[in-house]
Amino acid sequence: MEEQTTGIHPSLRTVEWKDNKVIMIDQTKLPNELVFVEYDDFNQVANAIKTLIVRGAPAIGVSGAFGLALAVLQSKATTKDELISDLEEARKILFATRPTAVNLGWGLEKIMNVAKTGDSIEQIKELVISEAKKMADEDIEINKAMGKNGSALFDDNDTIMTHCNAGALATVAYGTALGVIRATRESGKNVKVIATETRPIQQGSRLTAFELKHDGFDVSLVPDTAVGYSMANGLVNKVVVGADRIVKSGHVFNKIGTYQVATMAKQHGIPFYVAAPLSTIDLETKAEDVIIEMRKGSEVTGIGEKKTAPDDIGVINPAFDMTPPELIAGIITEKGVATAPYEESIPKLFAAN
Amino acid sequence: MEEQTTGIHPSLRTVEWKDNKVIMIDQTKLPNELVFVEYDDFNQVANAIKTLIVRGAPAIGVSGAFGLALAVLQSKATTKDELISDLEEARKILFATRPTAVNLGWGLEKIMNVAKTGDSIEQIKELVISEAKKMADEDIEINKAMGKNGSALFDDNDTIMTHCNAGALATVAYGTALGVIRATRESGKNVKVIATETRPIQQGSRLTAFELKHDGFDVSLVPDTAVGYSMANGLVNKVVVGADRIVKSGHVFNKIGTYQVATMAKQHGIPFYVAAPLSTIDLETKAEDVIIEMRKGSEVTGIGEKKTAPDDIGVINPAFDMTPPELIAGIITEKGVATAPYEESIPKLFAAN
Repeated sequence: MEEQTTGIHPSLRTVEWKDNKVIMIDQTKLPNELVFVEYDDFNQVANAIKTLIVRGAPAIGVSGAFGLALAVLQSKATTKDELISDLEEARKILFATRPTAVNLGWGLEKIMNVAKTGDSIEQIKELVISEAKKMADEDIEINKAMGKNGSALFDDNDTIMTHCNAGALATVAYGTALGVIRATRESGKNVKVIATETRPIQQGSRLTAFELKHDGFDVSLVPDTAVGYSMANGLVNKVVVGADRIVKSGHVFNKIGTYQVATMAKQHGIPFYVAAPLSTIDLETKAEDVIIEMRKGSEVTGIGEKKTAPDDIGVINPAFDMTPPELIAGIITEKGVATAPYEESIPKLFAAN
Repeated sequence: MEEQTTGIHPSLRTVEWKDNKVIMIDQTKLPNELVFVEYDDFNQVANAIKTLIVRGAPAIGVSGAFGLALAVLQSKATTKDELISDLEEARKILFATRPTAVNLGWGLEKIMNVAKTGDSIEQIKELVISEAKKMADEDIEINKAMGKNGSALFDDNDTIMTHCNAGALATVAYGTALGVIRATRESGKNVKVIATETRPIQQGSRLTAFELKHDGFDVSLVPDTAVGYSMANGLVNKVVVGADRIVKSGHVFNKIGTYQVATMAKQHGIPFYVAAPLSTIDLETKAEDVIIEMRKGSEVTGIGEKKTAPDDIGVINPAFDMTPPELIAGIITEKGVATAPYEESIPKLFAAN
């Protein structure tokens, strides 16, 4: 299938609307195969979200919206009310796939609100499809604006370390942290990337290494244990990671392991950046009130199907950790780069919005 | 088979001489099965070293010595010179299994030197077997002395983090870092342990978690990415690790990842200890002259047979890293505990020898 191009290489589009169908990369097949799946039934989209064919908060939000776009096409409703009722049914099924994903609820609600403004069946169909496509396009635009803002912070011949996958594969396309790396290359700078494996789920090796290699980057993989070695031996100039939540004080909640990458960077005088859209910034919650979910122990006692630890062993498997603001050189957003003190710089980004 | 006991639980003996046979734990079967293998041919011992049925520097050194003990029993020599010649042949075969392992060459040489002092075939057989058994016993004695010296540094109800496997399974029995933990419990203190997984080879989950659980310890496993989280959340009171080489300045070379565990410990005011016998201390080499070997990339691009990264990806996979002395609260040896400044305290341990 046709691929969108960014710069010199064809780039990945995680989820796309084409000829009244939804096309997705089947992420469960990565990194061994790049397979695109095509859906014309919203139930297939629901199943894709449930089975992690698509993952990553922004990608899931847009997938849900596309699911409703399929639902309006599938509906046999003859009145506006019947159509809205069909959409409500589809929304429930789509939402039940990953009910705790904030972006999924947000994407579905945005579409429902637009649908209700339509006067006729035809107009609702048109509005829903165009709004879902707009949401996908906006996700890419935000990532590109973020990338442009961030690219100024990186130098020619930098080797940039990244943790987990904050890439095209977590968004509609282009990515947040990896979007900054893409934009840096597009600005004419030559960059190399070091991806951490990111145990226990290996998003670094499975997804980041895959998508950067696909886009023609010079990317190397390190085990999570070799972050300190790489920095101590001068192999890393900058770090950029994504974020799951950022609070007003500048504390960043991101994939487990981020905190120690940031600490090692500080120890070696290496700037550590976070790239995330304003929608990731939570102005209400305090750092100490954020609850870090624990994931199942079997992720750590084995690797895929392979068991690597004794039975019935205790496991500490937090999904995220907290990186304090003093370790962060800057937070890159689509509206600009916030630097310390974050209590002042973060609200300014929103004011400029 | 009969097991040696330490304190309240039966403990693991990695390699043992019994009824003119060598008995080993088959470490390739761990953690899924605890299987003991029995050899009466030195070629079987050579094969066991080669195929990692036994691993860990001290364990390999003693295994080589036991291999020669089997060789004297197998020999059909009728003169002293013929016997020494048979032993030389066996030594070559045993040494070729892992030629870079310092302890293997050391163990084999020690036995050969003793063999040459014998006056008769019978006396040589007796000398070789008793020297090999003595080497095994001394390894345990050193570990127990180290453990006793280290145990004073740990408190009742401490939770101790350890990295990689510096345990019974790397030595004849008892272990170095894990020997300190065993001795702490034997001194009547209640301790819990957190073992890091230790990618890319998972010695933490496969071996440390296994042997501590076997000995009845409360042990939990964390992915290497969760070291910072565990310390930031007050889950760790002390850290103890082993060492592959320690130089006079107090720089410690140990399993990849040790440096960042030490850095995180320092950041959180958690004492970080190293436990190793004097034979690990290299008084001649400077830290900057120690070469850190790189291991094959396939250890990082997959887990066991399972491929988790794209083909042809660059990999940085160092076997060890260097922890500087300012991060180390003490180096625990069989002759006492060295503390900073190490240039002064380390030579004193040797002087006391």
